Amino acid sequence: MVHIYTGNGKGKTTAALGLIARSLGRGKQVCLIQFMKKNFEYGEIQFYSQQKNLDIFQFGTDKLIEPNKPAAIDLEEAAAAYRKAKQVLKSQKYDLVVIDEINVAVSWGLLDLAKQLELMQLAGDAEVVMTGRYATDEAIEKADLVTEMREIKHYFSKGVKARKGIEF
Amino acid sequence: MVHIYTGNGKGKTTAALGLIARSLGRGKQVCLIQFMKKNFEYGEIQFYSQQKNLDIFQFGTDKLIEPNKPAAIDLEEAAAAYRKAKQVLKSQKYDLVVIDEINVAVSWGLLDLAKQLELMQLAGDAEVVMTGRYATDEAIEKADLVTEMREIKHYFSKGVKARKGIEF
Repeated sequence: MVHIYTGNGKGKTTAALGLIARSLGRGKQVCLIQFMKKNFEYGEIQFYSQQKNLDIFQFGTDKLIEPNKPAAIDLEEAAAAYRKAKQVLKSQKYDLVVIDEINVAVSWGLLDLAKQLELMQLAGDAEVVMTGRYATDEAIEKADLVTEMREIKHYFSKGVKARKGIEF
Repeated sequence: MVHIYTGNGKGKTTAALGLIARSLGRGKQVCLIQFMKKNFEYGEIQFYSQQKNLDIFQFGTDKLIEPNKPAAIDLEEAAAAYRKAKQVLKSQKYDLVVIDEINVAVSWGLLDLAKQLELMQLAGDAEVVMTGRYATDEAIEKADLVTEMREIKHYFSKGVKARKGIEF
């Protein structure tokens, strides 16, 4: 089954991270592949990097990406993330494969939509979770489960900054 | 800050579970209190019960509850969950307190809305996450962050049953 968690609200990546906990609790083999999230310190990675039965592969840089104007390195990292995801899915080694922020990578021009759709096609018996804002209609059409995390209100609008252990 | 994750889509409890991973990765003290989830085996509990810095308290029975017609035991369990949550928040011992399914408990007549609002008031410096469908307007008004997990599509509608490691 392929899940998509999209929308502008808090809870997309964290829902995928929670699913990882649940699957690990059942002794399943899990893989987390992240677009646009390398070279930055995340609480969830500090936590999960100590877990067995979970492999983590991060791609990207620590620089902000300008939507639809990616630098060469951004395109290279996204291409590497795609190749890793393809290899991981083809290996059929994992029960759950989370491909974090892939929807944003497609929306911002870092990855062709056709490649995301190809990865969805490769899910096989694995549970595949794709996160990020801006999921396309085509990806939504192809997915088995889609949740829109819709922001009703957010403390960011009151000037609260992203905080360790809550946002990252 | 008080978060509410509500709506009819998949991802409310799992987002809270993911936030627990992130907070634990930052060395924070975390407490998970669950309404209506005792005496059933959950992958996430199997996983997290092995974690230090996390205390878990479950309440409820293994019987289904009929909305607005709770049995005496359901009311007792919900009252015990409320008392535990109040004690936990007043202790100020935790950085993150997840109160799972409390929105449903209120909606189904297991807990007075006034008691949920009282717990929100007790958050203090802690991050408090309240999950479950049917959050009331009053709770939403009082919260700092609200995400509606909105179901766009779900494989349950194709007849797929809840599966170990994915739904529980």
